[in-house]
Amino acid sequence: MENLLSFVKNNYEVYVNELADYLRIPSISTLAENKKDMQLCAKFTAEKLKKAGLNRVEIFQTEGHPIVYGEWLGAPGKPTILVYGHYDVQPVDPIDLWDIPPFEPTVKDGKIYARGATDDKGQLYVHIKSVEAYFKQKGSLPLNIKFLIEGEEEIGSKNLEPFINNHKELLKCDTVLISDTSLYAPGVPTITYGLRGLCFLEVEMTGPNRDLHSGSYGGSVANPVNVLADLISKLHDKNGKINIPGFYNDVVKLMPAERENIKKLKFSDKNYAKELGVSELTGEKGFSTLERIWARPTLDVNGIFGGFTGKGAKTIIPSSATAKVSMRLVPNQDPKKISKLVTSHIKKIAPKSVKVKVTDLHGAYPVLTPLNHKATISAKIAMEKAFGKKIVFMREGGSIPVVATFAKLLKVPSVMMGLGLNSENLHSPNEHFSLKHFQLGIISSILFIDEFSK
Amino acid sequence: MENLLSFVKNNYEVYVNELADYLRIPSISTLAENKKDMQLCAKFTAEKLKKAGLNRVEIFQTEGHPIVYGEWLGAPGKPTILVYGHYDVQPVDPIDLWDIPPFEPTVKDGKIYARGATDDKGQLYVHIKSVEAYFKQKGSLPLNIKFLIEGEEEIGSKNLEPFINNHKELLKCDTVLISDTSLYAPGVPTITYGLRGLCFLEVEMTGPNRDLHSGSYGGSVANPVNVLADLISKLHDKNGKINIPGFYNDVVKLMPAERENIKKLKFSDKNYAKELGVSELTGEKGFSTLERIWARPTLDVNGIFGGFTGKGAKTIIPSSATAKVSMRLVPNQDPKKISKLVTSHIKKIAPKSVKVKVTDLHGAYPVLTPLNHKATISAKIAMEKAFGKKIVFMREGGSIPVVATFAKLLKVPSVMMGLGLNSENLHSPNEHFSLKHFQLGIISSILFIDEFSK
Repeated sequence: MENLLSFVKNNYEVYVNELADYLRIPSISTLAENKKDMQLCAKFTAEKLKKAGLNRVEIFQTEGHPIVYGEWLGAPGKPTILVYGHYDVQPVDPIDLWDIPPFEPTVKDGKIYARGATDDKGQLYVHIKSVEAYFKQKGSLPLNIKFLIEGEEEIGSKNLEPFINNHKELLKCDTVLISDTSLYAPGVPTITYGLRGLCFLEVEMTGPNRDLHSGSYGGSVANPVNVLADLISKLHDKNGKINIPGFYNDVVKLMPAERENIKKLKFSDKNYAKELGVSELTGEKGFSTLERIWARPTLDVNGIFGGFTGKGAKTIIPSSATAKVSMRLVPNQDPKKISKLVTSHIKKIAPKSVKVKVTDLHGAYPVLTPLNHKATISAKIAMEKAFGKKIVFMREGGSIPVVATFAKLLKVPSVMMGLGLNSENLHSPNEHFSLKHFQLGIISSILFIDEFSK
Repeated sequence: MENLLSFVKNNYEVYVNELADYLRIPSISTLAENKKDMQLCAKFTAEKLKKAGLNRVEIFQTEGHPIVYGEWLGAPGKPTILVYGHYDVQPVDPIDLWDIPPFEPTVKDGKIYARGATDDKGQLYVHIKSVEAYFKQKGSLPLNIKFLIEGEEEIGSKNLEPFINNHKELLKCDTVLISDTSLYAPGVPTITYGLRGLCFLEVEMTGPNRDLHSGSYGGSVANPVNVLADLISKLHDKNGKINIPGFYNDVVKLMPAERENIKKLKFSDKNYAKELGVSELTGEKGFSTLERIWARPTLDVNGIFGGFTGKGAKTIIPSSATAKVSMRLVPNQDPKKISKLVTSHIKKIAPKSVKVKVTDLHGAYPVLTPLNHKATISAKIAMEKAFGKKIVFMREGGSIPVVATFAKLLKVPSVMMGLGLNSENLHSPNEHFSLKHFQLGIISSILFIDEFSK
């Protein structure tokens, strides 16, 4: 194992140069003009998987961009890891704000700058290189490995779920390994074990059959904007709790040990508020900020519109008003069940003076990987050894739908071995990736393979 | 007097033909391409005033469209009436929905169809013809008369107030006579004696310094849309009253006699609701629908926007949210005082977690013409005689700023002798004016001159 780790250190510069080649391909999944680059990038990925030592590598075309699959199943009876990642990247706008051309990777101060550096090419490449190093040094792996690398993560992964559903046997595994999240702080090994889910509704209120003159009619009929505001206001109680009967029924409570862990992170409300430009943080009473973001459901209006929205004054009673209302869900809330519950509650409390239409636009399941699962424990041991520090277990307030899909279709937990940083400008100009984390990531991945094979 | 009235009846067809000539001029004040027509129309108006018998007629150019002034002051020691009206009209879009070309006046079923027929050329022409008939039959008037006819009513009358302010002596009078409102019902003589005022505010809430990912941040900071909805909700109590301390302090209470009058009108809530497509009417408890519209202040959100307003789902916590909030005021509420009161209340009740900005966009004073004023009594007698029916005194929920301006600058009440109907499609395709009301209007105007001179 020592030889293997020093092999990685010795080859580190080669790996960085290869990663730079990967980053040079402008694989922007959302732009039609980059369709060819997507094919090129899938091919590049496949070649690197072959070079790493996998003996079956295949590019699956989809209705959108291709999915790259690779496997080495030379360890019968041993566990199987499925590495998931994505080779597509975000667009580069606003291009003016980049200090370097986004597809001309540049190393500076121990970081590699380019679109896709941290999200997700750099993090994904970690695992390709760990497998390659393993093969080169040991001739074989102590377990079976599969790779599933898609090109549509940034545009909703719409061809991935059907692919997984149609290839359950091919993708069969004991755990999914994903590096597409963040470290809690630079140099701090981190495993993300929980994700929130989502229930996204659109609520439309209709009052009079046309916009009315607010002078000639004001006082006679319900104003749908006022009614909608009233309704939104009623969705929280004065303690910041969501005020919908039954909403919390399936919420898994935070365990005392978890709360203790979170407390130890010494999260600074003050710095956080300062960074966001607000004078105070707020939310559900009785929970700390991290607890509220990671482990408690929330309800936010994501957008609202109705009536006159131009400059100046127009004196109308609008005919209708619409709010986009979404809830972040936590284990074990079911987005479909919540959608029904909230829809019927809204219809129940809305006054007769308006018509209400609720449309379910989107849902995602929350995820919680058990901390005592063998994959989690192996990842903890591997990362602590690589980073030389105690692991931080964190949750993430957002949703990564594919993790819920793996749980649902493959019935396995995912290990989210995030190696990026939230400050690395993913989705923004000057995206970058710490090369220290790149190297520690490869070592973590090697140690994880070793540990999980036992 | 009998001779005079039969003279009007005998000349009625001539008047209608002349009105048609007036309506042929496309005096759309808002369109640059009609600038020449505005000058033409002012000239036409001035000529008709001269022809009517006024001995001083003048066209005053403004920064916008001209103001036409006329006077006959041959009755020293007698009262002076100032007739106000406007010769400009609304645009004609959507032109496809017109049954006739909007500037080719057409008489059908006792109505004249054309843009401007009821708003306001037809109603204004009534008074030009009554003065003309008076002069033709009697050689002189029993009182002094002035005309003030503007060309910018449909675009906010912005040059009128400065003009009045600079010509107070020229415009000095005992009452202003305006026909630019509606009859309560066809054939029912009506005087509008009250108008609501307006206080129009824009309320902007700012939370975080940028739109935030609702997953990564949801639960940590106040969402400005939710906070704004909360605030809007708090502006009414559960009885539909405006929940701002001091808001009702200056409200003139409805007198029992007024409430009795309104009751007698037998307004149908059911028909009104049906026409608006709502299943119930609602508003401040303890007042009937007409009372609420005519004599009680209201608060309506005229527009709201914030966050993502496109199609589909976008999971953000918006950085800001804005509501256009306006209040209709009743005598003796002062829009400036209310603006300050409401602004400071909003700032007081908004939570510290957001920044609040309130901008006063527009204000208008409410108006109440005393029912026992000589001008009101004269108009009542005149209209009842002309129409052969008992007068209806009504108020109007909207604002006519010029009426408040006359009260403020000339210190005189206005008599709103409306001759139109709300159903006559003012501002819409197929605008028309009842020729019966045109004729009864001329007779009412003659009888008013007679009565007010006594």
